[in-house]
Parts: sequence; structure tokens; C-alpha cells
Amino acid sequence: MWTRLIDRFLHRFVCHGTLHLTYPDGAQRRYGAGPPEVGVRLTDPALLRRLTINPSLAAGEGYMNGTLQIEGDDLYGLVELGLRNMARGPAGLLQGMNQMLRNAGRRLAQANPAGRARRNVAHHYDLSGALYDLFLDADRQYSCAYFARPDMTLEEAQAAKKAHIAAKLRLQPGMRVLDVGCGWGGMALTLAREHGVQVTGITLSQEQLSVARARARNAGLDGRVRFALSDYRALERRFDRIVSVGMFEHVGVPHYRRYFGCLRERLTEDGVALVHTIGRVSPPASTNPWIAKYIFPGGYVPALSEVMAAVEKEALWPCDIEVWRLHYAETLRHWHDRFMANIDRARALYDDRFCRMWRFYLVGSEQTFRHAGQVVFQLQLARRSDAVPLTRDYLYRTDDAAGTRAAERRGVPGGANGRLRAQIP
Amino acid sequence: MWTRLIDRFLHRFVCHGTLHLTYPDGAQRRYGAGPPEVGVRLTDPALLRRLTINPSLAAGEGYMNGTLQIEGDDLYGLVELGLRNMARGPAGLLQGMNQMLRNAGRRLAQANPAGRARRNVAHHYDLSGALYDLFLDADRQYSCAYFARPDMTLEEAQAAKKAHIAAKLRLQPGMRVLDVGCGWGGMALTLAREHGVQVTGITLSQEQLSVARARARNAGLDGRVRFALSDYRALERRFDRIVSVGMFEHVGVPHYRRYFGCLRERLTEDGVALVHTIGRVSPPASTNPWIAKYIFPGGYVPALSEVMAAVEKEALWPCDIEVWRLHYAETLRHWHDRFMANIDRARALYDDRFCRMWRFYLVGSEQTFRHAGQVVFQLQLARRSDAVPLTRDYLYRTDDAAGTRAAERRGVPGGANGRLRAQIP
Repeated sequence: MWTRLIDRFLHRFVCHGTLHLTYPDGAQRRYGAGPPEVGVRLTDPALLRRLTINPSLAAGEGYMNGTLQIEGDDLYGLVELGLRNMARGPAGLLQGMNQMLRNAGRRLAQANPAGRARRNVAHHYDLSGALYDLFLDADRQYSCAYFARPDMTLEEAQAAKKAHIAAKLRLQPGMRVLDVGCGWGGMALTLAREHGVQVTGITLSQEQLSVARARARNAGLDGRVRFALSDYRALERRFDRIVSVGMFEHVGVPHYRRYFGCLRERLTEDGVALVHTIGRVSPPASTNPWIAKYIFPGGYVPALSEVMAAVEKEALWPCDIEVWRLHYAETLRHWHDRFMANIDRARALYDDRFCRMWRFYLVGSEQTFRHAGQVVFQLQLARRSDAVPLTRDYLYRTDDAAGTRAAERRGVPGGANGRLRAQIP
Repeated sequence: MWTRLIDRFLHRFVCHGTLHLTYPDGAQRRYGAGPPEVGVRLTDPALLRRLTINPSLAAGEGYMNGTLQIEGDDLYGLVELGLRNMARGPAGLLQGMNQMLRNAGRRLAQANPAGRARRNVAHHYDLSGALYDLFLDADRQYSCAYFARPDMTLEEAQAAKKAHIAAKLRLQPGMRVLDVGCGWGGMALTLAREHGVQVTGITLSQEQLSVARARARNAGLDGRVRFALSDYRALERRFDRIVSVGMFEHVGVPHYRRYFGCLRERLTEDGVALVHTIGRVSPPASTNPWIAKYIFPGGYVPALSEVMAAVEKEALWPCDIEVWRLHYAETLRHWHDRFMANIDRARALYDDRFCRMWRFYLVGSEQTFRHAGQVVFQLQLARRSDAVPLTRDYLYRTDDAAGTRAAERRGVPGGANGRLRAQIP
């Protein structure tokens, strides 16, 4: 019965490319036509039922367990085939019902009080630091890089990301900066070192906190950078600037207003915040169940309509909204290639199933940014309409930006590009 | 009774600044304290009831009719006092009820089939062209100017607006461009003249159509620019580029999906659209009743959450979202100053009540952009993620932009800045 259901489903589903499928009983079928072609062998009869009921979850688990085998290990090809055919719309009754159930469970799954938030964070970010060293850059930037030039290395593109965000923050020496979701401290240390600001970085990961504190000490920046194990809802001071990179994905829709309300409360009257988050260009939908189970419990990729509804209610000015297309696909490609180059060291840290899980995560995410409408939103937010200049050229005139930074190091607030420019007279 | 209600309302309402009010019976009261101070005299007892029931509408009508007189004709001061106190939140029961009723009527008011859309447009845009010449620039740009430098003249800032939009459209000679809501043709003529494109401009205003056609003939551009009296829903061809400036405000929320769906259908596969519209940074709310009655019937200022919900459903990529703060306040200040400098000519065209109405419209709008969270959203939209470059520096590197334009005039598609840059390899 499950074979027949899958067979009928795949006949309708595969319109782009060809899937050669070998069933557990040895039967071979072809679905679709033309390139690209992907060959898959299922070795476990129980997988058929699971694939019928929840295909996204079961496919990932089958790959992890080795019961879904791909010819030539062409994971990129299989994921692309799946995403491109999914992009054509809901494929059948079972998938439609599945989506309904997932939507119904969405609010529940995203309830994210401080205790659960900490457990969700620990699931991913308390993994061995050695694992992250196998695929991230030396600064452990675990978020989308910015390929200001297409030929940049990963290291250059991560530096460009930090510089672009710093430019949007319009930092001046001595400013107090809050980093919400500071990871291993790379952003906080960079801002303190290159812009002379005082940074408070908060994380919910004990592992990240230890690494970040050690890095601050080693860099002699522990006088200017302070790290704390803290929920964003527990803060009380005010800051001139707030930066939050790759953390909003963990907030959960029911908490969006509280998150932006906290940003507003923590900002000084002429403060500026920069929120950098993965987003989707399609309407709101639920998190992929495999990702939610194995990679980011409580994680959610928002549509801009959802983000803005909360920003509007919390009375923050959206001064600029940048949409990074394909930068994360390129970042993930770098991460995947590094991970595979270090696969033997990964296998020494974790078992083979974990390594296949990690590869599925990296490839699946890259292909989602390439083919399924995922992007990065950078929101520059403020309490006042004139907290940043009224045109965006200050972000792109490199000579001017350099001049400003030089002036700032000499103690001239804002340099030639400061508050005067923010006011149309 | 109405005096008592107004008295109680104003006691609670005025927390910022001072209102000195003289009632029709000669009684004088002061509300609030400190600067700025505004003096108002009400001369008609019937106005008290109307102000209680619908203050925004009645205040505007009182000013038009001369039954609400402002000391020193300080209209700026009165509007600012009202807006700043309103920004503190709903002021009382009556205003709350009023807002509820207006929300209930909102969908009805915004139903905008082609016939009503034409009547709504005629109400405003079929006014004498001579009126618009009294306050607009020579190109009759009736939308927000772009003060790329704070000291620009209105003419320079309107030219900068058109150049900025052209840069976002990434025009190449010979491209087919659609201008939805073309006004008196200024944008269409500029794009054809400066970028060598073929433009189709559509409007629902007979008056605008006649003027636009005459201008095309006079400029010798009627071979490259075609104007038509057409609803955006009636088009059938496809275009490489679509521009729509200051027209979305007339679409109406129930029609947003249809509007963006039409943009998508009318765009070629690698096409780019630029939608420029007034917006609000606060949550969705209804149109000011005075504006809806006297200036823009069917008009609506959207929140970005509303716009994006429709964009997401119609599967368009938001490649960039720029938020212009205060540029429209400055534009309206210029328009107001020119209108007042030409007030005698205005009075020769229309009666005194009309001229007071027009001034109330210009001052009220300027103050709304200055103090009440109105902005301009520029949405750059496409069907493909790589239809425009993946970084925004092409909009700001003036030497590069000039180089591209020069190359384009020589027939090199995209110049040095063309499609190659759009792909991260």
C-alpha cells in the first residue's frame, strides 16, 4: 500500500528533472523526464510509510540512517530536485494535510520562554567547538557572509559582513553597544577593536560564553568587551547601539513584539539597532520538520510581513531594509566544502550518522537559499526618524567611510558624515 | 453640552504645548502648558458638535469655511499641536469609537473597481493644470523628491528622484518600460530621453493624458513614448521594466494582491519593477477622513506589513526596500511655499475656500511626514533573485553609474555593471 501511495505521489510531484527510484523490494521506477537525473535506493520498507506521512522529515532521516542512498552521493542533486518540484506548489493531499498540521502546531512549537530558549540554544550551540572549527572561518562567524565582490574568500566576505554592519551602526568611539546573540564573540571583539566601542555581548550558550571570554582576555579587550549568559528579556541598561546577527531566527513568532519592544527599551533616544536574520520571500510557513527536530528546535524563518507587523507595533523606525539574495548560499557552499575537506576529523569527533546529518543540513540550507526563496534581511531600526542619515550613500562611499573612521579615531564624533547630514535643514 | 464635552476632551488631549481656545460664545479657555502656543477662535456653534464627533474632519472643514480661525494664521502650529498630542495614543472614548467605525468602513471605502478608480482619480488629477503649475516644479513631478544633498532646490531634488529610480531600474537602451500612473508624463519622458527606452505610460486622468501626449509631441519623443487612458488591470503586453510612482496610494488594500499580481504578469522573466509609495511606519490604520473626503477619495497609506503580505503571495522578490524619511516633508514645504507665493493666482482660479482647503492639505501632509510617522517606501521587485546585482553599491558609485550610462549609449548592454555582477559564481 505505501509503495502505491509513494508511486502515485511521485508521478504527480516530479515535473522538473528525473528521479530513478529503487524500492526496498528491488523494483525500479522512473519519475519525471530530462535533466537533472538523480538515482535513489531505499533499503528499508519502514521508510516507505514514513516518507508518505512526512516526506521532508523522513528523507533527511533516511539519508542520516543510510536507508536512503543516493547514487554518487549526489545530495545536492536530490535536494535541488525536491525543492524545485516543491516550488511548483503543494503536491498532493497528504502533503497539504501535513502542512496544515504543522501550521497548527506552529505557535506551540515556537512558545519560547527563557528556560526552553536556553535548552534550544544548547542543542545546537553547545556542540563541540572543534566541530565549528571544521567549517567556519577563524573568527567563527556563524552567519551569512557578505560577498561585496564575487571573488572574495570566506574570510574576506565575513570581514566585509562585519564592516557593512558596523557602517550601518554608525559607531563612534566610546559608544555602548549591545550584541544580542553574540556567538563566540567575533562581532563584539571586532567592533571593540576597530571602532573603540564598549560592547556587552549576551548568549544563552555556556560553550560560546567560555570561548568568547577567553578570546577577549587573549586579545587584551576584556576591559572593553563584557560577555554574559543572559536572555535578551533580562537586560536593564540602555545602549547607544544594538546589533543582533543570526539570533532572531530563534525568537519565535509569538515573541516578536517582545523582542522588538526590548530593542526599543534598551536603545537610547537617538540609538540605532541592526537586526540581521534569515527570512523567506514567500508567505509565512512552518519550519521544515527535519530542521526543527535535528538542527534548530524552536527555529523559524520569518516572512518580512511578520517581522514588520511587530516592528510597527513597537514603534521602531525601519530606516533601511536590505535583502541579501544568494550570499548565504555562497557562504554555505564554503562551509560545506570545508566540512567535507575535514570529514575525517569530523568522524573522529562524532559518529557517521551525525556527519551525514550535518552534511544534509549544510546542503539542504544552501539549496534552500539558492532555489526556495530564502534570503537574509538586514533591518536598520531606530527610535527617531533622523537617527541615521537620510540617504544611504554613506554605506557605499568607501573614501568617505574611511575618512569618518579616521576622524572618529581622532575623537571627532561622526567625522564629516555625522549628525549634520541626518537633518534636512 | 458640546462645549462641555470638548472642554473635557481637550483637557485630557493637550499634553504637549498650549492651546488657547475662544468658544463661539466668547468664553476663553487654555489647555496644556508651555510652548508651542496656538490661539484658535471658533465662530460657529454648530462646529462644536462636529468637532466632538469627528475632530479630524471637522477641524479641516472649519479651517476651510473660516469658522475655525487661527491666530496669525499659524496653521503649521495648530497641525503640529494636534499631531504631537495624537501621537501619544488614543485620546478618549469618542475618538476610539470614531476609529472603530472608520476601520469598519475601510474595506468598503477602498473597494476600487475600474469605474470608481476613474472617478477617484478625476476628483484630484483632473483639477486645472494651472493649479499644479502654481506649486510643482516645471516637470510637474507630483511625488516625493529626493534630497540627495540637503541644499538641493526642488528642481534638483526631483531630477535626483528620477535618476535614483532609473538607477534602480537598471535601464538599457531599447528596453520596454511601463509607467503605471504616469501623471503628466515627466518620468516617462525623462526615461525615454536619458536612457533610450520605449515607454508606455498609463493614467486614469483625461487631463493628465492630454498634457502628457502634448509634451511627448513637443519633445519629439512621441515615437518612443506612448500614453494611454488605461487601468493597470487592463494591460496585456509584457515589459522589461515597470515603474509606478505615487500610484499605489490609490490602489486600496483589497486590491494589493491583484496589483502585484499584475506587475508580475506584465514583467518579463528577468524584469525589474520599482514601486514608490507613501507609507506609514505605524501599524495599519484608516485614512484621515478629511483627506478621504476632500483630497484623495479611495486613498490609503499602507504599512509595510500590508504591502509585503501581498508581495509575498504574488511571488515577487523584494530585492531592496528603501525608506525615505523626511524627504516628503521637505518636498511639501517647497510646494507650500510656492503655493503661498502664488496665492493670488490660485484665488483667480478657485475660490477662497478651495485655496484654504489646498493649504490645509499641503501643511497637514508636511506635518504628517515630519511628526506622525509617514514615509516613502521604494520597493525594487523582480521575478528572479538575480535580476539585479547582489550588492547595492551600483546605486551610489556615481562614476560607475555614469560609466554604465555612457557604455549603454554606445550600445553595450549594462555597461561594466551588467548581468555578470548579478551572479555570485
